[in-house]
Amino acid sequence: MVRVAVDAMGGDNAPAEIVAGCLRALGKSGDVSVALVGREDAVRAELDGKKYDGSRLSIVNATQVIETGDAPVASIREKRDSSIVVGMKLVRTGKTDAFVSAGSSGAILVGGQVIVGRIRGIERAPFAPLVPCENGGVTLLLDAGANVDARPMHLVQFAQMGSVYMKLAMGIERPRVAILNVGLEEEKGNALVKETYPLLKSLPNINFIGSVEAREVTHGYADVCVAEGFTGNMVLKSIEGTASTLLHMMKKAFYSSTRSKIGALMLKPALLKTLSDFDASKFGGAPMLGLKGLVVKTHGNAKATEICNAILQCRTFHEERINEQIQKELGLGAEEN
Amino acid sequence: MVRVAVDAMGGDNAPAEIVAGCLRALGKSGDVSVALVGREDAVRAELDGKKYDGSRLSIVNATQVIETGDAPVASIREKRDSSIVVGMKLVRTGKTDAFVSAGSSGAILVGGQVIVGRIRGIERAPFAPLVPCENGGVTLLLDAGANVDARPMHLVQFAQMGSVYMKLAMGIERPRVAILNVGLEEEKGNALVKETYPLLKSLPNINFIGSVEAREVTHGYADVCVAEGFTGNMVLKSIEGTASTLLHMMKKAFYSSTRSKIGALMLKPALLKTLSDFDASKFGGAPMLGLKGLVVKTHGNAKATEICNAILQCRTFHEERINEQIQKELGLGAEEN
Repeated sequence: MVRVAVDAMGGDNAPAEIVAGCLRALGKSGDVSVALVGREDAVRAELDGKKYDGSRLSIVNATQVIETGDAPVASIREKRDSSIVVGMKLVRTGKTDAFVSAGSSGAILVGGQVIVGRIRGIERAPFAPLVPCENGGVTLLLDAGANVDARPMHLVQFAQMGSVYMKLAMGIERPRVAILNVGLEEEKGNALVKETYPLLKSLPNINFIGSVEAREVTHGYADVCVAEGFTGNMVLKSIEGTASTLLHMMKKAFYSSTRSKIGALMLKPALLKTLSDFDASKFGGAPMLGLKGLVVKTHGNAKATEICNAILQCRTFHEERINEQIQKELGLGAEEN
Repeated sequence: MVRVAVDAMGGDNAPAEIVAGCLRALGKSGDVSVALVGREDAVRAELDGKKYDGSRLSIVNATQVIETGDAPVASIREKRDSSIVVGMKLVRTGKTDAFVSAGSSGAILVGGQVIVGRIRGIERAPFAPLVPCENGGVTLLLDAGANVDARPMHLVQFAQMGSVYMKLAMGIERPRVAILNVGLEEEKGNALVKETYPLLKSLPNINFIGSVEAREVTHGYADVCVAEGFTGNMVLKSIEGTASTLLHMMKKAFYSSTRSKIGALMLKPALLKTLSDFDASKFGGAPMLGLKGLVVKTHGNAKATEICNAILQCRTFHEERINEQIQKELGLGAEEN
């Protein structure tokens, strides 16, 4: 049984879609229990009249909400009774195994490090979203912005953790690990990449394939793309921004004439399939790796399906003992609690 | 009269489309002269039978070609009779005002710095492509990868040069200048951004609007996006890669069924307009700023239209005296020659 705390107040569609996602996950898997963290009355109102296995669902009251505009560090420190802080403390104290939130990215990334805390020996806990690829697959991008100004040894740990994750969570036998770079040749790169490259090359337990340029990330040449957090954030956000811009422009084109409207109608099924192919949320949310427990961030606009997938992803993480495997692969001692 | 050297051998469509682009530019503007640099026999064969003003077109023989796979620094040093080296020397020696090439990006960026050379007082010459935006406009991204590991004062110069360029070349009165960052708050960022931010804020001669996240670049919130070269390259290439991935997936969707094929046919005019809106090549190529003269890089797959636009862009650069204005805005002494 994996015990998952879920932020009932986080994201654009809270609490309705969050609660709906939890109930769906409970229905789909008998090995999951959920603690809904948030304003008890609001959560109860959503649960009212719904059918679910009450023995696997609890409510943990939290009276405050960290808003998207709140400064991350200050809000984690000051909003002690917020759903994010309370939910993360459940993981920290071992009351749950994981925490899922569609709330403020900044607060989740800060809270993961300072409340849940890192596995002993892990120096940075990277944010590791799956990026959709042209071939229908995905690639893990880490660090996508949990930390900035990382050093070479941090990137080495990212590569190892990413490799373990893609193997155990996604079932890829020998994940191809690449470092994000401005060119493919070994002598290319900034100081950080030049120093990190030979370290990755010499690692016996990863399948390092060299550099990958940013324009190749969505082409699926690598299963794991390693980057310093500022860089990774730039790549992730550029991909998201460009996709959003192009879809917006396409939509405008569709509505530009009667002819185009009819054409769009006929194309709709094919286009919907394309859009669902270019969407990694079917695999759940983006984990922070290297924490004592698991923190998963979903999109802010996540609906019930994504929340449900994120909860089921926590089950995989737990069952595959990914944290134990990370400790083993990185040669770290077992965690004392 | 602006004198433009054009790399006749560079890019996927050389020399045919390059020569065609030159002839088109000569036809469109009486104030342009072109020196076609490359293998004389190949260039002559393309010119054969075409009508043009011979007094404004010359051929400069260059027997070698730098291929995309060649190592940039080595090829600039060793292929002394390549079209890129010969063309850049024409700028360096004042025989032409500008050099346009669709050839190897790496060689162009290296050659710009070491052959053409920087304006005295300019410490880094950034690569400055225009990125298409959702609203049909463009934003200047610099440095998009000519240098890596820049320091704060380099970014300050990028901001000033970018601002001058967008004002004079694109006619934007008070260009909004932003720094690429992982968040909008002033305390966000890596060490470089945190150190650069207050410097930009205190500059009297630019309209600094603060940070811009990578996902907002294509949304057109800024006219100039300043970044360290590794970061800028990641953003540029991620945007290009995502656009290419999505278009590839859309095309596949269009051909997936009879119904979708008919729909695509009806949508074609509207979609073609969208694609041309999301394409900055109508403005020409990407300049390197801060050089003694002008170097413009077009896409490797540039056709005659883009080459023609790049040549006309050189005319604007020359007529608007952009280099003189850069020296003035940056408080640099006039260049002695």
